[in-house]
Amino acid sequence: MTQKLLITGASQLITMAGHSEKPAVKDAMSDLQILENGALYMEDGRIVEVGSTEELQGKYDVSSEEHIDATGKVVAPGLIDPHTHLVHAGTRENEYAMRLKGRTYMDIMEAGGGIHATTRATQEASHEELYEQSIKRLNKFLLHGVTTVEAKSGYGLTLEHELKQLEVAQKLGNDHPIDLVSTFMGAHAIPMHEKETPEVFVDRVINEMIPEVAKRNLATFNDVFCERGVFTPDQSRRILEAGKEHGLIPKIHADEIEPYAGAELAASVGAISADHLLRASEQGIKDMAEAGVVGVLLPGTAFFLMAEFAQARKMIDAGVAVALSTDANPGSSPTISLPFIMNLGCLNMGMTPEEVLTATTINAAHAIGCAEEAGSLEKGKKADVTIFDIPNYLFLSYQYGMNHVDTVIKAGMPRVVGGQLV
Amino acid sequence: MTQKLLITGASQLITMAGHSEKPAVKDAMSDLQILENGALYMEDGRIVEVGSTEELQGKYDVSSEEHIDATGKVVAPGLIDPHTHLVHAGTRENEYAMRLKGRTYMDIMEAGGGIHATTRATQEASHEELYEQSIKRLNKFLLHGVTTVEAKSGYGLTLEHELKQLEVAQKLGNDHPIDLVSTFMGAHAIPMHEKETPEVFVDRVINEMIPEVAKRNLATFNDVFCERGVFTPDQSRRILEAGKEHGLIPKIHADEIEPYAGAELAASVGAISADHLLRASEQGIKDMAEAGVVGVLLPGTAFFLMAEFAQARKMIDAGVAVALSTDANPGSSPTISLPFIMNLGCLNMGMTPEEVLTATTINAAHAIGCAEEAGSLEKGKKADVTIFDIPNYLFLSYQYGMNHVDTVIKAGMPRVVGGQLV
Repeated sequence: MTQKLLITGASQLITMAGHSEKPAVKDAMSDLQILENGALYMEDGRIVEVGSTEELQGKYDVSSEEHIDATGKVVAPGLIDPHTHLVHAGTRENEYAMRLKGRTYMDIMEAGGGIHATTRATQEASHEELYEQSIKRLNKFLLHGVTTVEAKSGYGLTLEHELKQLEVAQKLGNDHPIDLVSTFMGAHAIPMHEKETPEVFVDRVINEMIPEVAKRNLATFNDVFCERGVFTPDQSRRILEAGKEHGLIPKIHADEIEPYAGAELAASVGAISADHLLRASEQGIKDMAEAGVVGVLLPGTAFFLMAEFAQARKMIDAGVAVALSTDANPGSSPTISLPFIMNLGCLNMGMTPEEVLTATTINAAHAIGCAEEAGSLEKGKKADVTIFDIPNYLFLSYQYGMNHVDTVIKAGMPRVVGGQLV
Repeated sequence: MTQKLLITGASQLITMAGHSEKPAVKDAMSDLQILENGALYMEDGRIVEVGSTEELQGKYDVSSEEHIDATGKVVAPGLIDPHTHLVHAGTRENEYAMRLKGRTYMDIMEAGGGIHATTRATQEASHEELYEQSIKRLNKFLLHGVTTVEAKSGYGLTLEHELKQLEVAQKLGNDHPIDLVSTFMGAHAIPMHEKETPEVFVDRVINEMIPEVAKRNLATFNDVFCERGVFTPDQSRRILEAGKEHGLIPKIHADEIEPYAGAELAASVGAISADHLLRASEQGIKDMAEAGVVGVLLPGTAFFLMAEFAQARKMIDAGVAVALSTDANPGSSPTISLPFIMNLGCLNMGMTPEEVLTATTINAAHAIGCAEEAGSLEKGKKADVTIFDIPNYLFLSYQYGMNHVDTVIKAGMPRVVGGQLV
């Protein structure tokens, strides 16, 4: 039986059409392609037609269960989160409280905290435990309007535990409505006991982990934390090049804490995205724009760490395609609200309400290589749709700090209705 | 029939006990009085007993409908928002978009925006229209865990329309589960056509509006916007003293844009609270601490206007009892999420997770004179309770930008269950 769904009456239907081949840059980031009193018809998980309510109403024979009246609401592409550390065990709220009371990151590390705390917990967790903790987070993503999530490994740091993280992500992708896109990030940190011999660990990532991850088809991307004290630009390049040889597309955590030529490396190695970029250099920004590297900005991390924000305005003006993400992780950004990240994009990074929508839909899709399938409401694409209970899209960050998601449709199926999972 | 309700199993039951007579200051703001595995029994809208689950389970004869299992959750006093402009007509999202695109406040005023836009809309709205728009906002407050809201007039600016706002607030307080506390704020702005003769307007507030509002028992408090270009300290003092003669307790919008001796005035006039305080002077802070004036801080307004934040840390260290509020209004702070304001308190004002809870419960109650009845979970108080679906209270701002409210009980009755109005 054909699975049908018709949405009518949207006060604004934001299609984001026209950018499936290349990400939107500069002024195109403000071009939402809005239909007023818009309608959308889907069949078997695909978008069949986008148009006016007048055109589509009556044209398609649907029952009342197959019809959503979106009068007074905003209909948008399902949101896409292109940078998360979804699969992990444990939480680190105590570190957060310590920071608020003036303790330094070093105090916290000495108290057994930081990334190594999550690594220990994740190594100790079974597949089932990781799955149970992570699926709760996926449900919250769905409640916040997100229909596609990138998920990185990188809390395993041994072949066994990196594979475990990726296998859990794979199973979550199969079981849960949200589409998961997997990234191998063995080079997330150097294990404590190998601090003095980083090259040994780098070699292991290159010679053991990458080939095995690729062989098992457990990841699409290969990411590395290129930062002083973690992986050098040279090590990062070798890791990313090794991934390319095995078919893994490069991504990079770049220039988060200091300018370290991460953006430049992203451009020269042909990365699909460079992420963080708080301290990216002018040259790096220029290189990214020329090479077409998507800049994935994570303002929640700056907000939560009380740090400076990335220079989104400068990047957009330079022609970088900007995307936004939660960076969801237990240490530096525990939120699961991509709508709130949009607020920060506007209020702390000088982006406009139009740009933050582009940055969480079509440009986010480009950052994880799924723009042919997702990120806009166009004929033939996946029927991933988020309906917000607001009269126009400006309310997304005008009524800030709130979740306005009313309905989420994933592959043509309503999964959130009235703000509740169904 | 007795209306009963028993809550058991709270991983943390935050009572906030011991501060009903005087607000919590300094270290006392960090003393949440937490019971682990806590329980709470209510009858006919009042708290009967607070204790451990072991003690209370079995002691009270309740049916399954009268029992809430809060295992794994945090139980807290219903949140209190001590500063809102709840009753108003219209929205101003277009001004927000203009600001994000670099337009100045003056551009916006010239385009017919600013407070006068809301004044026009509110003057033109009928009682019914104001009521309908405002009750939707009250429902959202409830969904965000708030059980008591202060509501100011001040968009009427004529006797007729100020009375209309206050009458709508009164009706909302009668009809809606949330308790409303009303503040007359005729001195919110000088009407456009009286810009050149402010004294005429001040006299009208003093001689016409205040007596009539007091006679009709439509407000508990009398507030004034003491700021350069609005009301001078001298005018503000006369307005607040006139209110006192009619039994209205002074409040003051103080030192929001520049130091203007508003905090000092609050102390000398015996205000119950001074609000905003972004630019309060050292002397003003000292005076407030000595006089016991609650400092109501509104970090959402600073966040939304991209301004500097109030110096919460300095005020707390100086002994000012700090409360937090949304400042909910259509121009400078359109949010309705007090939980998000807590996030800003921590991440943008240096408050601790404990202090922000005190600031939105018992200290907020003191800011609006209802601490004998609300703001803590203690025997005899109103049974106003918010249950958060988080393992401990640190998650309130650790998992930032999200609404963790699961259940809201107002006067012993569940009004929100599973994050939905019932």
